[in-house]
Amino acid sequence: MLNEDYLRLKTFVDDHLLDFLPDIDQKSITLYDSMRYSLVDGGKRIRPVLLLAACEFCNFDIKLALPYACAIEYIHTYSLIHDDLPAMDDDDLRRGKPTNHKVFGEDIAILAGDGLLSSAFEVMMKDMLLYFDNPDMLKRRVRAAYEISKGAGCRGMVSGQIADIEACGKDCSKEFLDYIHLNKTAALMISAVRAGAYIAGADHDRLMDLTNYAECIGLAFQIVDDLLDVDGDESVTGKRSGKDKALKKCTFPSIYGYDESLKRLDELTNRAIEILSPYYDEADFFINLAKDLAKRVK
Amino acid sequence: MLNEDYLRLKTFVDDHLLDFLPDIDQKSITLYDSMRYSLVDGGKRIRPVLLLAACEFCNFDIKLALPYACAIEYIHTYSLIHDDLPAMDDDDLRRGKPTNHKVFGEDIAILAGDGLLSSAFEVMMKDMLLYFDNPDMLKRRVRAAYEISKGAGCRGMVSGQIADIEACGKDCSKEFLDYIHLNKTAALMISAVRAGAYIAGADHDRLMDLTNYAECIGLAFQIVDDLLDVDGDESVTGKRSGKDKALKKCTFPSIYGYDESLKRLDELTNRAIEILSPYYDEADFFINLAKDLAKRVK
Repeated sequence: MLNEDYLRLKTFVDDHLLDFLPDIDQKSITLYDSMRYSLVDGGKRIRPVLLLAACEFCNFDIKLALPYACAIEYIHTYSLIHDDLPAMDDDDLRRGKPTNHKVFGEDIAILAGDGLLSSAFEVMMKDMLLYFDNPDMLKRRVRAAYEISKGAGCRGMVSGQIADIEACGKDCSKEFLDYIHLNKTAALMISAVRAGAYIAGADHDRLMDLTNYAECIGLAFQIVDDLLDVDGDESVTGKRSGKDKALKKCTFPSIYGYDESLKRLDELTNRAIEILSPYYDEADFFINLAKDLAKRVK
Repeated sequence: MLNEDYLRLKTFVDDHLLDFLPDIDQKSITLYDSMRYSLVDGGKRIRPVLLLAACEFCNFDIKLALPYACAIEYIHTYSLIHDDLPAMDDDDLRRGKPTNHKVFGEDIAILAGDGLLSSAFEVMMKDMLLYFDNPDMLKRRVRAAYEISKGAGCRGMVSGQIADIEACGKDCSKEFLDYIHLNKTAALMISAVRAGAYIAGADHDRLMDLTNYAECIGLAFQIVDDLLDVDGDESVTGKRSGKDKALKKCTFPSIYGYDESLKRLDELTNRAIEILSPYYDEADFFINLAKDLAKRVK
């Protein structure tokens, strides 16, 4: 589904994703194996790709943003490991492989998640040490890391996960559904483009346009995920279908219905494209991405 | 057991511990309640107290180190919540209260832990934004946050937890036991004093002396914990005794025997005191702390 430009950035992430894990002592090698298991082989890498693309869109060398791109994928991966645990969504399949706890046990899976989240911040902070002679660059990186911490934490992804759990089996309003998905999924995508823009030293207009774009495609992405859970092909998605219904989750199809969800997806896609259209071909990557994401379900 | 100076710093932490949690939307209030439940009422606060004491020892205003002190207690608290989960140590009592998952359920407890760990970094990064006009102070804070991330992560606490789990029921060498305890317990205490020293702009000698001191009392602290699990009074410790034996954990008493563990504790306490003795009464706090910690078991 994804175009060449996306694959170029994704390959760059895949090639370096393990480079930024801390050196782990042989005595704790199971921790490394478990983190590595969930990091490699699969994953669309959409958050790190968004971060790098935002950086490139603001005319900055993406190599210098790589630690932050990897950090955000560590955060995303930790959230999947914890989300799949028996006490949470109880999934046995992810990215076409047995989930982390199925292979390593629940205790190691919990710690692998904790290790990945800790590593994400360790990577970013270690990177900052390299810019002590350049206060301007240092400040940009602090801002980027702060954005990522906000998107990952209690005003972002974690709060979305809690709301998602609490809404299960309840009559959920459209407003609450938006709250769940904005936090659970869009928040870290918004952090990704903002972090990339900050690292690049972007001006205020580009930062805000990227923010608004990422909010739209973040919600669109979640609608597609919800729709694929209804009628997706497990051999293509790499995860079990029908889980949302079984867990009585509040999803776009359960609240809006299937057709209305598709309409909402179209609206969000068009809005995302509209926001970045004034940049003409400079924004090609983002415009193509919005179109490609919507196509995932069709 | 603890002297007035300790209580002064502990009270300062207790009074402000909730101030640095992010503003959480009412829709995710359960997340806040669950994090708050494990943060308040109890806890020795030894890590934040060590951080503030190190800062004070290096002649710096402890108010300016408070966000880092609270962050390190958030990290410690998240580790307790996850450690108590059924898939880990399966504890139902902590600090004299039912453990987090007993009250909120396993799913919320996992997320409360994730939220606390994320918040710790969010707090520190947000604090850094306040020092953009003062690059020297900004750099000290980046160093402090990096120390904390190392102590918490895969070269620190998380690796110690993994090693601890893997050693269960096995014939564990003394070297491996030291590895477990250095990482599981001492690492975050070492981070605490180093972070405090960095924030204060300490010279190299003080930084190294504090580091070596914290390594000794970190190990000593864990020996005391192991001994209290053998013969501690649950109404005093606030947690179940005899858990280590039931889980076949590698502990100081299980490897060295009870009396030899007491001897090791004395050696470490004396070594800690010796390291900071050249500072005379400037180091009173740390010297008294080393003595008080050893007395916990006697």
